[in-house]
Amino acid sequence: MAQSEHHDWGQHLAQMRATAPLVHNITNFVAMNVMANVQLAIGASPAMVHALEEVEEFAALAPVLTVNIGTADGAWAAGMLRAAKLMALHTRPWVLDPVGVGATAFRQELCAGLLALKPTVIRGNASEILALAGQGGQARGVDAGDGVAAAEAAARDLATRTGGVVAVSGPVDFVTSPTRAARVANGHALMPRVTALGCSLNGVIGAFLAGQPAFEATVAALAYYGLAGEQAGAKAQGPGSFQPAFLDALAALTPERLTTGAKVQIL
Amino acid sequence: MAQSEHHDWGQHLAQMRATAPLVHNITNFVAMNVMANVQLAIGASPAMVHALEEVEEFAALAPVLTVNIGTADGAWAAGMLRAAKLMALHTRPWVLDPVGVGATAFRQELCAGLLALKPTVIRGNASEILALAGQGGQARGVDAGDGVAAAEAAARDLATRTGGVVAVSGPVDFVTSPTRAARVANGHALMPRVTALGCSLNGVIGAFLAGQPAFEATVAALAYYGLAGEQAGAKAQGPGSFQPAFLDALAALTPERLTTGAKVQIL
Amino acid sequence: MAQSEHHDWGQHLAQMRATAPLVHNITNFVAMNVMANVQLAIGASPAMVHALEEVEEFAALAPVLTVNIGTADGAWAAGMLRAAKLMALHTRPWVLDPVGVGATAFRQELCAGLLALKPTVIRGNASEILALAGQGGQARGVDAGDGVAAAEAAARDLATRTGGVVAVSGPVDFVTSPTRAARVANGHALMPRVTALGCSLNGVIGAFLAGQPAFEATVAALAYYGLAGEQAGAKAQGPGSFQPAFLDALAALTPERLTTGAKVQIL
Repeated sequence: MAQSEHHDWGQHLAQMRATAPLVHNITNFVAMNVMANVQLAIGASPAMVHALEEVEEFAALAPVLTVNIGTADGAWAAGMLRAAKLMALHTRPWVLDPVGVGATAFRQELCAGLLALKPTVIRGNASEILALAGQGGQARGVDAGDGVAAAEAAARDLATRTGGVVAVSGPVDFVTSPTRAARVANGHALMPRVTALGCSLNGVIGAFLAGQPAFEATVAALAYYGLAGEQAGAKAQGPGSFQPAFLDALAALTPERLTTGAKVQIL
Repeated sequence: MAQSEHHDWGQHLAQMRATAPLVHNITNFVAMNVMANVQLAIGASPAMVHALEEVEEFAALAPVLTVNIGTADGAWAAGMLRAAKLMALHTRPWVLDPVGVGATAFRQELCAGLLALKPTVIRGNASEILALAGQGGQARGVDAGDGVAAAEAAARDLATRTGGVVAVSGPVDFVTSPTRAARVANGHALMPRVTALGCSLNGVIGAFLAGQPAFEATVAALAYYGLAGEQAGAKAQGPGSFQPAFLDALAALTPERLTTGAKVQIL
Repeated sequence: MAQSEHHDWGQHLAQMRATAPLVHNITNFVAMNVMANVQLAIGASPAMVHALEEVEEFAALAPVLTVNIGTADGAWAAGMLRAAKLMALHTRPWVLDPVGVGATAFRQELCAGLLALKPTVIRGNASEILALAGQGGQARGVDAGDGVAAAEAAARDLATRTGGVVAVSGPVDFVTSPTRAARVANGHALMPRVTALGCSLNGVIGAFLAGQPAFEATVAALAYYGLAGEQAGAKAQGPGSFQPAFLDALAALTPERLTTGAKVQIL
């Protein structure tokens, strides 16, 4: 696999850090702390705001929004829809993480409502992307039961329907827009053994989206995240020591190192 | 104290890992991330689902449920009762953690309702087990004010009433079913200095319960957790460095090492 | 800057540890786990209780309360007001963290209600203290956009209005009561790169307040927290490894070391 495909992926990291974007996140209880720490480590400015009393007012302040349905209930779902609607209205980017969408009717209905608001980027594991596209998927809690390859057609279908970017996470990620596609092979085997790392990846994609083209920003974010995982995995003794090492690696990784270390194949 | 009492405690760990059970957890905001990481580290598959809109549908998917009342409010309490009722109906195992039950009338009423659904396993500190049995207990926040020995009679009483297993956590744990009892002496002094480790222990018990006999599964889970604590404590510089070391130890500990390291006394 | 200004700051740490106070916290989802771990590490006993069904009953048990509006909604706000009202009624100390108060009308109204209940201590960053005093402040999410010096007059104004202590966090903290003021220069550059460390500082101030004079307790808590940050920063490779090192340092730091290491200037 060609390394970086002649594209300077590190520039997207450099631009994100120069902007230090405020990112509005509506995410789940498990991921909230991890996502905030990940966004601070990469150089962005996180804010977790979900209450119906203020979610639209806050969404109006932020250049980008991330939505994660992991532990939503009716009130949180309403807040997600309001915030996403506002982003859609102002044509500002937002990211959807359809956690465990195949598991319950409530999640399917919520995601149908969010999908109609055309997320700029959708990222999930293979089972979630399959279920979101209405093609089944082995919904077993929130972990992936399906391989990435099995979800490529579903991802392309979703990209066509939303006009946005869809990323399928796995050992080798698959990313597609309505017109382009890529694979990203960075990552480490310990990453699925730590909770909320998938969720927090959407926080990184969100930060990269502020003022940057969606397809390139998503690919760059995936490569950056996976490369930091590789560096952390080389130091870790297990899933516990992986976590601090991963945040350290996200903070320390330079644009230059990302450009040389990104394992991206444009399809 | 006899080591392992001629029982192969490690087989329970091996069986849990071979099954990699999906565990449905309804737990508190403080513990949610830690419990998910603990369950991933041991080889189980955690899912945190509480919303009334989906909690019964999800409970129907999972072989085991854990309930923790730590930060419950009325809506969460209703979700706990619905999910536990479904497990009781289908005679599937579920675990109760009666956090701070002695502190408020709301917690006492909620626990009375949960107790009526006959949890397969109840695990709490001595003060909580005493309060749950209606025998007082020095309720001072969520930390134990009473010694384990003071709660043994209360634990036996609860086991008789529910027909299940009751475990009292402390320097030496006490575990009882209506017909059997044991002590487990594994553990480390830093464990009570880290939040949510008691809560997360219930997540380990839950994972061990899937397809295994409740008394042996509970004893094995306590010994495993305490032994991993001993290994982490030997490396840690304090409560902060204990946490990553503990997750690493949970992931690395083998069934063989558990069988030789378990400090179990059958009474 | 004079070190410790001839005051034995370590005695406040020693007294807090001897008391091991139960601290009732109503805080945000991002901070909950971190604050509990910080309070356990310093030797206090944390309890996170927010539900309207029990918040007043629990507040009646605790010698001190901390309130943080970070992820509040209507129900949580009502619980905060009830608990703070009870503390005010019984003239027991409580601490306010006005997270991102300048961002939305909901936060401004909630803080106006809390301010009327005269918090014993308010601690926030410069932007939050400015916004709380009605003097603007560059509200950009929850991170400070203003320098500490710009918020000194606002802090003095708030202290006069509440009769309490107001602390402005930053590279050099500013603390003021209606009659006294100080600067605290302890701290480390990695602290703003880790989420919930500001929030958790209020948990430390709360623990120090139990049975101690508010101005001295606040100054001592700030110096202690910053000094632990210095020690952790000397060991950390980045924001990830800073976290366990910080909890270790909080637990290990002795009163004697605090007295010699506190960088306090009484104004």
